[in-house]
Amino acid sequence: MTRVSRRRLLGTGALTAAGAVVSASAAPSAAARTAPATADVVIVGAGLSGLTAARDLVAAGRSVIVLEARDRPGGRVYGLPLGDGTTTEGGAEFIGPTQDRITALTRDMGVETFKTYNTGKNVYYRNGTRSLYETDGILGAVPPDWGVIDLQIALFKLGDMIKDVPVGEPWKAPKAEEWDAQTFYTWSRSNSLSSGARFLMDAFASSTLSMRSQEVSLLYLLHYAAAAGNESTPGTIDRLINTKDGAQESRFAGGPEQVPIRLAASLGDIVRYNAPVRSIVTGSGGVTVNADGITVSAERVVVAMSPAIAGRIDYSPALPASRAQLTQRYPMGSIAKFIGVYDTPFWRADGLTGQSIADSGAIDATFDNSPPDGSRGILMGFMNQANIRKLDGAPESEVRAAGLDSFRKLFGDKAAAPRATAIQRWDNETWSGGGPTGIAPPGALTAFGPALRAPCGPIHWAGTETSDYWTGYMDGAVRSGERVAKEVHAAL
Amino acid sequence: MTRVSRRRLLGTGALTAAGAVVSASAAPSAAARTAPATADVVIVGAGLSGLTAARDLVAAGRSVIVLEARDRPGGRVYGLPLGDGTTTEGGAEFIGPTQDRITALTRDMGVETFKTYNTGKNVYYRNGTRSLYETDGILGAVPPDWGVIDLQIALFKLGDMIKDVPVGEPWKAPKAEEWDAQTFYTWSRSNSLSSGARFLMDAFASSTLSMRSQEVSLLYLLHYAAAAGNESTPGTIDRLINTKDGAQESRFAGGPEQVPIRLAASLGDIVRYNAPVRSIVTGSGGVTVNADGITVSAERVVVAMSPAIAGRIDYSPALPASRAQLTQRYPMGSIAKFIGVYDTPFWRADGLTGQSIADSGAIDATFDNSPPDGSRGILMGFMNQANIRKLDGAPESEVRAAGLDSFRKLFGDKAAAPRATAIQRWDNETWSGGGPTGIAPPGALTAFGPALRAPCGPIHWAGTETSDYWTGYMDGAVRSGERVAKEVHAAL
Repeated sequence: MTRVSRRRLLGTGALTAAGAVVSASAAPSAAARTAPATADVVIVGAGLSGLTAARDLVAAGRSVIVLEARDRPGGRVYGLPLGDGTTTEGGAEFIGPTQDRITALTRDMGVETFKTYNTGKNVYYRNGTRSLYETDGILGAVPPDWGVIDLQIALFKLGDMIKDVPVGEPWKAPKAEEWDAQTFYTWSRSNSLSSGARFLMDAFASSTLSMRSQEVSLLYLLHYAAAAGNESTPGTIDRLINTKDGAQESRFAGGPEQVPIRLAASLGDIVRYNAPVRSIVTGSGGVTVNADGITVSAERVVVAMSPAIAGRIDYSPALPASRAQLTQRYPMGSIAKFIGVYDTPFWRADGLTGQSIADSGAIDATFDNSPPDGSRGILMGFMNQANIRKLDGAPESEVRAAGLDSFRKLFGDKAAAPRATAIQRWDNETWSGGGPTGIAPPGALTAFGPALRAPCGPIHWAGTETSDYWTGYMDGAVRSGERVAKEVHAAL
Repeated sequence: MTRVSRRRLLGTGALTAAGAVVSASAAPSAAARTAPATADVVIVGAGLSGLTAARDLVAAGRSVIVLEARDRPGGRVYGLPLGDGTTTEGGAEFIGPTQDRITALTRDMGVETFKTYNTGKNVYYRNGTRSLYETDGILGAVPPDWGVIDLQIALFKLGDMIKDVPVGEPWKAPKAEEWDAQTFYTWSRSNSLSSGARFLMDAFASSTLSMRSQEVSLLYLLHYAAAAGNESTPGTIDRLINTKDGAQESRFAGGPEQVPIRLAASLGDIVRYNAPVRSIVTGSGGVTVNADGITVSAERVVVAMSPAIAGRIDYSPALPASRAQLTQRYPMGSIAKFIGVYDTPFWRADGLTGQSIADSGAIDATFDNSPPDGSRGILMGFMNQANIRKLDGAPESEVRAAGLDSFRKLFGDKAAAPRATAIQRWDNETWSGGGPTGIAPPGALTAFGPALRAPCGPIHWAGTETSDYWTGYMDGAVRSGERVAKEVHAAL
């Protein structure tokens, strides 16, 4: 105990000596002035899921306030400025068959779609060699040897397994425990022998989820593919990865952000921007939601955010363990998009679609982001998750050089001299924390999956991660908003 | 566009009809009154790591303020009240050989330790049958058939692999990529055939990490065992799991919480309680740390919390992606402790240590938590992660019945009639988010591991998860505090 006393003495002495100053006076902080408000339902997040829920609840006669952290609606749907007053798709980009709910909403908002440019050959860059291939999806990229058969067998097996995954409830699959106990990497190595097939399965995980196959639960990946359909059309890997007849089939005139922008505008001033929610307090009479600048009292709250980001809010009382720990087990992908703007889409004249897959360089997949009339060329490259992290602290010039080096290897010297470049990283973006979606590592879906959607008292959950069909996509976000609106309306 | 206009009209109309009220007046919120303070260093978290860092920085002549969310120091080191004025270990409990830094701190604080009761046989409950075994650790529990050899071979293999893991930098192991691509479940199934060996490997992960083997990266588990030593004594699985000569060797007289309680007391009023930190703002002159009731300006900040919980703080500017996404990929275990208090440690008279392993029931491992003089009997059972989640919304009586049913099966009818029971869950505990520690799923250490410790400008990271030796233990917490104090002192 002598030591304790000496330590105490030392501590206090040193504190005074080094001059820590603690004022006893209290002053209100600047962020503290809040406007009180009330509504039947408060919705956290003005992405597609939150806005859709707001639309349906308002239409059902409920009063709603939507609180959005950013100064814009849309969340992961975002028009990236190109520096000349125009934008390109910085986040969500495509719309395809069976995506019925985003299709309906897009029509309702008066936004047109057009086919993704898909004429010509795709580029396949591997082991330092550039080659071209024609078939859509990843199968066509395998060199014409036994690797094709190897990959085809693996894809057939995956296709069979996908049929056994109940959409929206993958934890109920007969083999859920077995499939959730391993990574997709483990499965792909056990079920293929050729390096070509293995590389393309990794590329499938990486380009679809912006995550390494090492991180993803096999069950999650099966569930993601099972969800790539609708009530009358089972999900398939092909629909997930293809441009023709697949999830990359079409794009939005003026950008997909026109949908949430118009939807938010139609809701008027019930959507509050620059209002990040800090805490949600559940009381006997409902909930109090505290955001910067505004406090809303409501009967119910819809948290329309990914689990990982929803986990940052301070809930009082604490959430049930299954939900609280789920938010620690649903990490966001590490998506980043690098953009090159050219006078023309020159690759089209070279007989190329602008689509590619690469095993090296900062960019591992590309698309043609040019406007519908092809009046200029815009090349979009996904910077893969490993490379974008390596460039974490790099100056912009270095990131640009790395991106253009990839473009040049894939599309030739013309690609190295764009009129402008732009980059959108989501992995260091505070209010999304990554993208395109939250992904389950092994063991999470079987142990915590039901907590994705199960309400916690008056707290309801939305967001594309909670959707049955097209989870991870804009369609899933809209579906989740429609589902949660029904859920809340019924509970009120 | 007609639809948009109609929607806008509908939206606004419905809003008014349903009576959403938004007041324009602003009022300061109650939580807003904050006392400003300054120091050289602000430390977030008064657990062992934060307090140790504070002690060393104060001793080095730095001014320090420690901000703690709870009304007590110690974090995951906690004395659980038994209802009669006494406590038992509700969180961290044991101390063992090579845990040099917690040993030194314990001595400095004048806290005594004593040997964990370890005389007699352990109970092994599997497939409905109760048997006894003598050998320490898990090896003795295998029935005397070829399963022993099966497990022994697997443990030998693990032992060899552990030697190749650089302590504190597992991502630099020669086979790091291969080991981090799979779960421990995958490895254990590929490297054993008997159900007995497989069960005990799962029990090893579960009892050590409070997580299913399906969730844990093989590399993480190897790293955890490699860390179970010190600079002169390599870590081993035996030291991790054993009572005799292992991590469970001794306990603390009066409870381990006496160490942080006395350490905090020695630091005096620089430790501020009920001050959860909400945001950390980095500016040109240093950092501003905003907590409930106090705002501290400092040159450096030490965040002495697990990555998952540190991720809830709002950082401005945003953290680098590698750190931000790490906090989404280091989930906490799901530990819970169920306590039965008896007039005597009756199991000792039955020739039992009080230690057990079980494959069913709410409790999957037990220890003798009785006071050093054995003046009464205290049985502690780990409620396994799956069962505690099933009991998420259950009334206390049901949890109690499930715990006592387990005790009865393991230690007989006497165990079913305790004088008192208590339970400590960490998985629904706001300020810890789980326990005993943060754990890496596959793919996290190789891609994000260095971000565990790498400072982000003036923001430094501590906590047992950042330790080289004894990560996950009290010793690791103390080591991390000592390391970060040196790091910050050198940077100031």
